[in-house]
Amino acid sequence: MTKYSYDETDAFKTGRDVWFEMRGAKVAQAAVDQAAQHEMTRDLRQFLFEHCFAAVWARPGLERATRSIITISVLTALGRTEELKSHIRMGLNNGLTREQLKELFLHVGVYAGAPSAVSAVRAAMEEFEALDKAKA
Amino acid sequence: MTKYSYDETDAFKTGRDVWFEMRGAKVAQAAVDQAAQHEMTRDLRQFLFEHCFAAVWARPGLERATRSIITISVLTALGRTEELKSHIRMGLNNGLTREQLKELFLHVGVYAGAPSAVSAVRAAMEEFEALDKAKA
Amino acid sequence: MTKYSYDETDAFKTGRDVWFEMRGAKVAQAAVDQAAQHEMTRDLRQFLFEHCFAAVWARPGLERATRSIITISVLTALGRTEELKSHIRMGLNNGLTREQLKELFLHVGVYAGAPSAVSAVRAAMEEFEALDKAKA
Amino acid sequence: MTKYSYDETDAFKTGRDVWFEMRGAKVAQAAVDQAAQHEMTRDLRQFLFEHCFAAVWARPGLERATRSIITISVLTALGRTEELKSHIRMGLNNGLTREQLKELFLHVGVYAGAPSAVSAVRAAMEEFEALDKAKA
Amino acid sequence: MTKYSYDETDAFKTGRDVWFEMRGAKVAQAAVDQAAQHEMTRDLRQFLFEHCFAAVWARPGLERATRSIITISVLTALGRTEELKSHIRMGLNNGLTREQLKELFLHVGVYAGAPSAVSAVRAAMEEFEALDKAKA
Amino acid sequence: MTKYSYDETDAFKTGRDVWFEMRGAKVAQAAVDQAAQHEMTRDLRQFLFEHCFAAVWARPGLERATRSIITISVLTALGRTEELKSHIRMGLNNGLTREQLKELFLHVGVYAGAPSAVSAVRAAMEEFEALDKAKA
Repeated sequence: MTKYSYDETDAFKTGRDVWFEMRGAKVAQAAVDQAAQHEMTRDLRQFLFEHCFAAVWARPGLERATRSIITISVLTALGRTEELKSHIRMGLNNGLTREQLKELFLHVGVYAGAPSAVSAVRAAMEEFEALDKAKA
Repeated sequence: MTKYSYDETDAFKTGRDVWFEMRGAKVAQAAVDQAAQHEMTRDLRQFLFEHCFAAVWARPGLERATRSIITISVLTALGRTEELKSHIRMGLNNGLTREQLKELFLHVGVYAGAPSAVSAVRAAMEEFEALDKAKA
Repeated sequence: MTKYSYDETDAFKTGRDVWFEMRGAKVAQAAVDQAAQHEMTRDLRQFLFEHCFAAVWARPGLERATRSIITISVLTALGRTEELKSHIRMGLNNGLTREQLKELFLHVGVYAGAPSAVSAVRAAMEEFEALDKAKA
Repeated sequence: MTKYSYDETDAFKTGRDVWFEMRGAKVAQAAVDQAAQHEMTRDLRQFLFEHCFAAVWARPGLERATRSIITISVLTALGRTEELKSHIRMGLNNGLTREQLKELFLHVGVYAGAPSAVSAVRAAMEEFEALDKAKA
Repeated sequence: MTKYSYDETDAFKTGRDVWFEMRGAKVAQAAVDQAAQHEMTRDLRQFLFEHCFAAVWARPGLERATRSIITISVLTALGRTEELKSHIRMGLNNGLTREQLKELFLHVGVYAGAPSAVSAVRAAMEEFEALDKAKA
Repeated sequence: MTKYSYDETDAFKTGRDVWFEMRGAKVAQAAVDQAAQHEMTRDLRQFLFEHCFAAVWARPGLERATRSIITISVLTALGRTEELKSHIRMGLNNGLTREQLKELFLHVGVYAGAPSAVSAVRAAMEEFEALDKAKA
């Protein structure tokens, strides 16, 4: 049972649906339930669904794989490692390959500095290893 | 006549060719000649051809339009306006549409902050206006 | 007459109202009309009203003057000068004094580097001068 | 016993007093003693007292709670997580509430990118949990 | 005559002396007088002398040319162009050569992204041209 | 045995030699072998040798100790902690002293914000401790 309930606005539902598809329903539901245990995390999750996933991910005009490329490029450039890991997984779900991610990281490394590529590769390798273990 | 000559290595030529195709030969040649007037700008241009355009743009594994999306995302996120303008032009040459750029800027705005989208739109509008005037 | 019309959602109207109050109705209306001349600027303005001004400025929990302090601190730290100027004006409208802004800039200078304070002071002095001229 | 002694200038003492009040005397004294074990950490601590806590925190013109809001906004925007945690504690001591911090993080998220809010919420939740455990 | 007077503390005088030597007495005095016309610029100048030029530039342990290299590297990486220009001039006064600056910019370009080198070279070329004109 | 082999271009070899000298042959060889286990890490290592260590570290015009100062300044300013640790070790191998690094960190702290100095000192203390243990 959740302590803090979400405000199920249209935008909330739109963003939630996008995120569930990209993140995988089981992991996503667990995260949503966990976030509902505290006011701060509930409000953050509500905010992300409405003003991040509904606001841009649900828009037409770019395919999801392209939106993953944009997101991962920005997170790599800004060195936001935790968020990057989560979006690497979603990017793979959206159809990106590991080879494309590799090329993306090197490309960003030229424009945001080589250390950004080094960090991103380290994060990706951890995600790949976790994914390979989960499959094994 | 140029005062400082380039070192025409294979990497230099590879990077130069990519850049000339994306930038347009006439503008590109003028920039290369201008850069050759000073040691500092010559060395920078040499560096960019070898370690930027040959290093990543000439690699297989991602289409040029995709590399434009990555580059423009990073430049928008980091607020590098002058370079952004140049890559908006190259992105259009690589096949991106103005509508796709608009979507990209809003998407980056969520992940790098709304001001990054505002600056990028301002830069893009200036480039679009210049392009429309040149055509008229 | 505007070429591109806005989608007057509840969120759009909420955000617009906040912005009109903070920016001044006359300047705000001119900006909204101007943005409606192009698809890209229309979509950006729509986005800012819904996902910036409605999303956080219209929330309860913090006074507007406090939200101005947060916004101006972030813009100073990130060196987003154009947006900073606009928010300096809105901050003054929200009740901040020039002396408080001065203290804010020096404080940010310690945490984001002295150059961030230098740039912010330069931007503020330009805004103050423009405001003083408009009054004279 | 400390290996490296501080230079107890007026500025040092002013900055130290501010910091002891905000951090809590016991934790602060332990940190000061620990820092005195090495030349590098002693010099850093001396620097922070003189050029950070005396330089801005001890200035009149803004209340401490307001200075906490500015500091936490900047640290959230720049992704300086370790320093952020320390300033979340000091902010609570300076009178900020958890609800205000939540609003601050979402607000910064709009201007510095959603990942900055996600990281800050994660850091704050860790601090809140540690505080609640210490009280229990 | 200045409207706002400085607080001539020891730290102020130490920082001022360093800055006058690096900036050139005539330009420096004009800037100090100009800053004294407004409370905000006076306080900023006071802050910079005490907490920037006295705080680090006046310390032993590194030569001024080395401190210029550090400063210019940071300003290039962070894209703080206006401050960069001022420190390029001071760096030349501190004994750095144009060739060393060129190497520095390319080196930073690898670690902070190629656009940081492009911006720095543009800024440096403007400064060099202004210096050459002033000499001619 | 390595799964993915490097492309031993001249640039690769030049960059590798510089890195082996600065990093220490034993640690360097282990890292190169480890990187060769995966396509992504192999390509990153290849890229770093060619477009980072050959591209700038192998250039004449600045001594290695000076290049370490530039690199460490940038990494401190940008908060790239993992890369910073590696370059602190290489900086010491290139002749920098711990006292010089301390001065560098405080200097960067003024220009990139005090938190950058705090993080860098923490990273350096960890490296110093590891080095002292390895010697004991």
